[in-house]
Amino acid sequence: MTTPDNPMEIAFALAAEAAAAGEVPVGAVIIRDGRVLATGRNTMRETGDPTAHAEFNAIRAALAADGTGRLADCDLYVTLEPCTMCAGAIAQVKLRRLYYAAEDPKGGAVDNGVRFFSQPTCHHAPEVIGGVSASRAGEMLRKFFAERR
Amino acid sequence: MTTPDNPMEIAFALAAEAAAAGEVPVGAVIIRDGRVLATGRNTMRETGDPTAHAEFNAIRAALAADGTGRLADCDLYVTLEPCTMCAGAIAQVKLRRLYYAAEDPKGGAVDNGVRFFSQPTCHHAPEVIGGVSASRAGEMLRKFFAERR
Repeated sequence: MTTPDNPMEIAFALAAEAAAAGEVPVGAVIIRDGRVLATGRNTMRETGDPTAHAEFNAIRAALAADGTGRLADCDLYVTLEPCTMCAGAIAQVKLRRLYYAAEDPKGGAVDNGVRFFSQPTCHHAPEVIGGVSASRAGEMLRKFFAERR
Repeated sequence: MTTPDNPMEIAFALAAEAAAAGEVPVGAVIIRDGRVLATGRNTMRETGDPTAHAEFNAIRAALAADGTGRLADCDLYVTLEPCTMCAGAIAQVKLRRLYYAAEDPKGGAVDNGVRFFSQPTCHHAPEVIGGVSASRAGEMLRKFFAERR
């Protein structure tokens, strides 16, 4: 699978797929050498697994596709700032770069909350590029929650 | 499966099993209503999955066994203080109590590091009982690393 110029487009498509399935719209994609290694979207409701966040699903799929246990040459694109659990997982698998769209002041752990990648107990920090298409991702989330109120 | 008076004994047995398999010795067990719901041990090496920590494996097994996605009436016993990723997962699945043995000043996220359960972006904090059989767990870890030097 080749990758479009902006891999965040793939993440947005996955977020839309999540919304259509009644899940909070978050999508993620992992890129290696300009190609898609793995994708993930939020499946918490469908699977009954509160740990099934988009980026965690993408990481697990990438580990399965790769087989070496290390994703040090891979970049992650996700439509929402990762939570503490997912930031921890990103450090564990040593992802190279993290691109995220909307910030999450309530649950984020990168530029909000515990800011894990800046802490001494974080043993690998990716390069972080936040706020990529943030308003589009924020709008998608607001629309989802507004429709369910 | 009935549970012994001290469920941490089960976690220690799983940690020993991990060591015998060449894994860093950490074991975990999840208890509901006085019975074992699920167990896990470190399988990072064997599975090539750096997220396959003992307590994360136990949480996934418990979710699979339970099916509701919530473990709010469950207690987790683990031989090492959980890391940031695992502390995040514990909050996500809303475990009631966390018993851990050895502290982990370098990677822990409960009484060290980001102290996640005390942070405003943590939306569920378990009751924490740390230091249960800590010296025994610490000795097990020291022995494992000393033999590999």
